[in-house]
Amino acid sequence: MKKLSENEISEKLKDLEGWSYSGNGIQTSFEFENFKEAFTLMTRIAFEAESQQHHPNWSNVYNQLEITLSTHDAGGVTEKDFELARAIEDIVNSD
Amino acid sequence: MKKLSENEISEKLKDLEGWSYSGNGIQTSFEFENFKEAFTLMTRIAFEAESQQHHPNWSNVYNQLEITLSTHDAGGVTEKDFELARAIEDIVNSD
Repeated sequence: MKKLSENEISEKLKDLEGWSYSGNGIQTSFEFENFKEAFTLMTRIAFEAESQQHHPNWSNVYNQLEITLSTHDAGGVTEKDFELARAIEDIVNSD
Repeated sequence: MKKLSENEISEKLKDLEGWSYSGNGIQTSFEFENFKEAFTLMTRIAFEAESQQHHPNWSNVYNQLEITLSTHDAGGVTEKDFELARAIEDIVNSD
C-alpha cells in the first residue's frame, strides 16, 4: 500500500467532513451525548476496523472520541486510511 | 468525593498491580494479543464504568490499551478512581 503525498491527502480530505491531516495521520473528533453513545459508536467502528484489518489510533473520555488514522507499515497515510475514514463517516452519519 | 493526597494515593497504589500516579491521575497500560482481544476487554470495562457512572480516559491502538483515571469534579484522584481501577484489574485478571 503506497504512502500518499501531502497533495494527494489534501485532495482526498475534500471528500470527507471534519477530517484534517496532522503529521501523524488523518484525524477527527466527535462529541456524543454521553459515554454510552460514544462507546456504542466505538463498537460499530471496532467491528468495521476488524473487518478491514486496519485499526484506528483512538482515545475516549466520557462523550468525546478522537481518532487518528495512519498506516504503520507504509510510514504514513494510505488509501486504507481513507477507506476506514469513509466507513467511520458512514457509521456516524447513519446513527 | 474527597480528593486524595499524594500520600494516600501512594498507599492505595500498593494494593494494585501495574498502576502508577502521574500528575493527571492513576494510570496503567495493557498489551493484548490483538485488536479483537483489546476491544473485548474494553467492552467489559465500558459496562463496568457505565455501571459505576465513572468513566476512564483511555486510548487504544491495535493491541495496546492505556488508561488514566481521575475524578474531574474533584480535580484529582478520589476513591472512585480506585474503585474503577480495582474493577479493571478484576476484569483483566479474570480473562
